[in-house]
Amino acid sequence: MASLEEIAAFMTAEFPQSRCTVTQVGERGATVVQPVGVQDLRPGGTVSGPSLMAVADLALYVAILGEIGIVPLAVTTSLTINFLRRPAADRSIVGVCKLLKVGRALAVGEVSLYSEGDDAPVAHVVGTYSIPPASRAG
Amino acid sequence: MASLEEIAAFMTAEFPQSRCTVTQVGERGATVVQPVGVQDLRPGGTVSGPSLMAVADLALYVAILGEIGIVPLAVTTSLTINFLRRPAADRSIVGVCKLLKVGRALAVGEVSLYSEGDDAPVAHVVGTYSIPPASRAG
Amino acid sequence: MASLEEIAAFMTAEFPQSRCTVTQVGERGATVVQPVGVQDLRPGGTVSGPSLMAVADLALYVAILGEIGIVPLAVTTSLTINFLRRPAADRSIVGVCKLLKVGRALAVGEVSLYSEGDDAPVAHVVGTYSIPPASRAG
Amino acid sequence: MASLEEIAAFMTAEFPQSRCTVTQVGERGATVVQPVGVQDLRPGGTVSGPSLMAVADLALYVAILGEIGIVPLAVTTSLTINFLRRPAADRSIVGVCKLLKVGRALAVGEVSLYSEGDDAPVAHVVGTYSIPPASRAG
Repeated sequence: MASLEEIAAFMTAEFPQSRCTVTQVGERGATVVQPVGVQDLRPGGTVSGPSLMAVADLALYVAILGEIGIVPLAVTTSLTINFLRRPAADRSIVGVCKLLKVGRALAVGEVSLYSEGDDAPVAHVVGTYSIPPASRAG
Repeated sequence: MASLEEIAAFMTAEFPQSRCTVTQVGERGATVVQPVGVQDLRPGGTVSGPSLMAVADLALYVAILGEIGIVPLAVTTSLTINFLRRPAADRSIVGVCKLLKVGRALAVGEVSLYSEGDDAPVAHVVGTYSIPPASRAG
Repeated sequence: MASLEEIAAFMTAEFPQSRCTVTQVGERGATVVQPVGVQDLRPGGTVSGPSLMAVADLALYVAILGEIGIVPLAVTTSLTINFLRRPAADRSIVGVCKLLKVGRALAVGEVSLYSEGDDAPVAHVVGTYSIPPASRAG
Repeated sequence: MASLEEIAAFMTAEFPQSRCTVTQVGERGATVVQPVGVQDLRPGGTVSGPSLMAVADLALYVAILGEIGIVPLAVTTSLTINFLRRPAADRSIVGVCKLLKVGRALAVGEVSLYSEGDDAPVAHVVGTYSIPPASRAG
């Protein structure tokens, strides 16, 4: 298992371009927050689908690191997103992940995405990560 | 909106073969229980994937009826299932649905499936239903 | 790799209740056909979603056996189905699987489902199977 | 229906930041190409998942515009991606979309993603788009 500080340091080192902040990790879950930048916007003043997916993918990765420790080689194998409501252009995106399974080879989790301050989710994601054999033994 | 009794009566009339019992509906969700029969079993003493999907599909349908009333023409448009753990062959399957969105044309919900009496889900489903125009106007 | 005859014999032994016939296997794909029985029907004269999923799941399993040989322990880990058109009640369901990846630990394939004799697919499935370590070594 | 030129002009006007080029549209499909930039890369010299999803989403949108004409309000409602192989960091991403259904309210398509010049797909996507009522009438 890895702490919030260890994960934050790892993310900064490995993903220096990331604009996401990890605000919670542990108890089989994680929460991340990402401000909406000009590159995330779409015509009509909303947030692009790929930007939402990126936040969800990161929330899932952070939650898994929180369970199995720092494993640079864990990779996303699949991801399903359902878009539910139009996100606000002027609010950060919050991703709340709950892990459904952390097996030896595969982890599965769901992520609810919100416009910060709004209770109704803008999108819902289910994703799976493959965990490399080396880290399973570790 | 439809009550548990109205939905149970509708299900019995429309799906006389169904072995599912609706145990809760309302507050944007529903719970259904289905005993495991010989036709649901797979070699090795587990429950087949399609049997799990059938319970999830029904839980989602019941939850939607609970929100929009009895709409015979609502149809599943997509369904994603992740299998998490091996279900027990000798326990009923419980499906707990939470609706994520009930829009004018589309409803989206997630369903956690359990072997009765066990807290760890055996599968997780996200599904979408198309709601026919007539019932939207109603 | 396993031949059509070996797979058909394995399926008969392991899934004696199955009504599916394997009509083609090899070249990273498989085709299966299942007659529509009374238990597959839904009100309005169509085929149930879970029956379609069962055919797709089997087509995928057969295609994988065709590539890696008879592996009883390969299990579905996820499945996404999109329902496209209303299947005919009086025609068999044909499932045509193409494998997208056969890795050491995971296989991924897509399945198009048809009402026999009709060119427009009634549903489309993408599924993943987990391959047990023993058979990878084999 | 819209031609490649009409769609290219629309994309340039509506998505000025997009780096994608539409190379084919029509016959219920589309092909797009996107060069890999520094913002698409991940540690280890590969292309990020969200960058792949963005190319797939665009290929699907372009294919739909090719069928129903320029409809600015069509929106993605769901997307499932399976990651198959590691994309090359130094090759463009090619997205080849085939539409599975173009209904009145919903369009469904699949997209195979490739590293340019390589025949084995790096990812596979199935996505659905909601088509606004106004354009259905048009």
